Amino acid sequence: MTTAFTLAATDGAARAGTVHTAHGQFETPAFMPVGTKATVKLLHPDEVRALGAQVILGNAYHLHFRPGEDVIEDLGGLHAFSGWDGPILTDSGGFQIFSLRDTLLAVDDDGVTFRSVYDGAPERLTPEDVCEIQRRLGSDIAMCLDICSPARAPRAELEEAARRTLRWAERQVDAPRAPGQLRFGIAQGGIDPELRRRSIEDVVALGFDGNALGGLAVGESREEMLETVAWSAPLLPADRPRYFMGLGDTDGILGVVAAGIDMFDCVLPTRTARTGSALTASGRINLRNARFARDPRPLEEGCDCPACARFSRAYIRHLVNQQEALGLRLLSLHNLTFVHRLTAGARAAITRGEFAVYRAAALERLAAGPQEDPWDR
Amino acid sequence: MTTAFTLAATDGAARAGTVHTAHGQFETPAFMPVGTKATVKLLHPDEVRALGAQVILGNAYHLHFRPGEDVIEDLGGLHAFSGWDGPILTDSGGFQIFSLRDTLLAVDDDGVTFRSVYDGAPERLTPEDVCEIQRRLGSDIAMCLDICSPARAPRAELEEAARRTLRWAERQVDAPRAPGQLRFGIAQGGIDPELRRRSIEDVVALGFDGNALGGLAVGESREEMLETVAWSAPLLPADRPRYFMGLGDTDGILGVVAAGIDMFDCVLPTRTARTGSALTASGRINLRNARFARDPRPLEEGCDCPACARFSRAYIRHLVNQQEALGLRLLSLHNLTFVHRLTAGARAAITRGEFAVYRAAALERLAAGPQEDPWDR
Repeated sequence: MTTAFTLAATDGAARAGTVHTAHGQFETPAFMPVGTKATVKLLHPDEVRALGAQVILGNAYHLHFRPGEDVIEDLGGLHAFSGWDGPILTDSGGFQIFSLRDTLLAVDDDGVTFRSVYDGAPERLTPEDVCEIQRRLGSDIAMCLDICSPARAPRAELEEAARRTLRWAERQVDAPRAPGQLRFGIAQGGIDPELRRRSIEDVVALGFDGNALGGLAVGESREEMLETVAWSAPLLPADRPRYFMGLGDTDGILGVVAAGIDMFDCVLPTRTARTGSALTASGRINLRNARFARDPRPLEEGCDCPACARFSRAYIRHLVNQQEALGLRLLSLHNLTFVHRLTAGARAAITRGEFAVYRAAALERLAAGPQEDPWDR
Repeated sequence: MTTAFTLAATDGAARAGTVHTAHGQFETPAFMPVGTKATVKLLHPDEVRALGAQVILGNAYHLHFRPGEDVIEDLGGLHAFSGWDGPILTDSGGFQIFSLRDTLLAVDDDGVTFRSVYDGAPERLTPEDVCEIQRRLGSDIAMCLDICSPARAPRAELEEAARRTLRWAERQVDAPRAPGQLRFGIAQGGIDPELRRRSIEDVVALGFDGNALGGLAVGESREEMLETVAWSAPLLPADRPRYFMGLGDTDGILGVVAAGIDMFDCVLPTRTARTGSALTASGRINLRNARFARDPRPLEEGCDCPACARFSRAYIRHLVNQQEALGLRLLSLHNLTFVHRLTAGARAAITRGEFAVYRAAALERLAAGPQEDPWDR
């Protein structure tokens, strides 16, 4: 196996590197926009590329049901199907299966039975099945099927989930793959120091191409999450990519990057956009607010995204209020641009050895909140 | 006043020309995509431009209520507000006021009272009000407020509508305008030869910068519409643009172009897209149809639109079925590209003196329907 990760710089625990995949490389720290159903909602792949994304996510659970991995394989795989020719990571569906609790029917050591969210039909998936789905999808990075418990779940539940996750990981590490496909293991264990440490050691020992922390940012406090990632990220092998599953806000991203995490993803930037809000360095603004009705300024001063380059808050507010999709599209472009600018800035700061300063400045600006609005009437 | 229209070629009654406006010129025959609420639904203005559109529509009725002409004026007018810097024609709202019959409260010689479709509040608009709205919007071509009756309405109703439309036109011809704004008159009269002829003569006599046929394609048969436009279009002055209000299908477009019409508009290409269907030279295809589930071909072979250049029918079908906006966006791009290709082809054929051949070939291909599907299973 060739090396999937090369390290360019470190700054404390923070790292800047490159992940190499069958469809090209991406620089880390990397935010991965979520394209659950083979599309980053509302956006053309060229737009996603242009705003700085180098790797995107797909979801094996959703694509298994609609349109089906057989259809996507027939059409040449997920890259050809979706028109995104860069790296794609597919989530296994573990999060979906175990977080949609009313659709969960049974879990045993062999696999999991649940109802499809699409039509309620019962479905049985084993770890091997999920590997096979991802092989047929042809993603560049396939995630293991794991059992994702809320971080605050009872210890016995966390322990059982970690045990099964490990048994399943053992069956997936050598399962058939698409050409060049990498496979990442996932450690569970919530915020319990002993369980988390043991899960990391066990999963890491299996020798996956990369390793992920799962089951965090799902119920625990921000403080608990940051504390856990601070000591656990360094336990993941330094010569392989480290992935924190599900994180997309400024404070969280900079926190896990500080701990040595390389990759993260979240629906937050695009979902926030679809509720009519913009992410900015000084916090979130809700375009439905009446004070933007005649605001001629861009969503964020100095932003070079396609929304800020051409359109006013007033126009975007009008579009949002009138349920015109262009409004949500422009907000999606802005929010993803914002997160990628934050991440690119983090990488540059790590390279210069100034990540702590960068992080502190960003958090200070965020805490200060929106400045007084000189334009406001 | 400078000339708003220059004629480049004629072929029978069909014309190829150029309309000159304060925000640049556009070539005719011209299809105008509909951007009712200051956005061609789902699309960025650069995309609309790139697919061949040179002029778009806005709607004074909708923009008056949301966000209001005062807001748009504050933001620098409709061009600056919406990010489209080319020619914009604004419809007066007459069609909306008179076609949404349950919101109509009273019409008299002075104006019209109706309920807003947004909140049901009563609203009174005079012809002068509508001119003022369009002046403040700053569109390049302002349409007169007229009374649009269904073509099959009783003769007395048509006659009364045409009479009031004329009285109103007299009050609008010299009303204040935005700098360089053109104003078009509208002839009514349904398909009644006497009423239609009289309305045309009366409106034309007022000397508008361009003239429109209103109240057609609203209830009469296609045959009746084509027969009416065939004799009435040539009654409109040859040295000014002629606009057929509301038409966007292949047969209709080529029919009115043959009669000497220069401009037309319709929601059909974009609305059809939003129902999940694509326009092609051999007819409409509904992407929800199961036979497209694994179809690797583009929406239309040989099409150079952004959808056909990259994506399969199978992928677009998946997006449509999953209510992913990118699917409707790609279909909108394709359908507008299709109509602009048809219109550009008509212009080229007129210039070569081969419009009749062009029209016959297009109608023949349409009548033949989709070819046998060699790929279909």
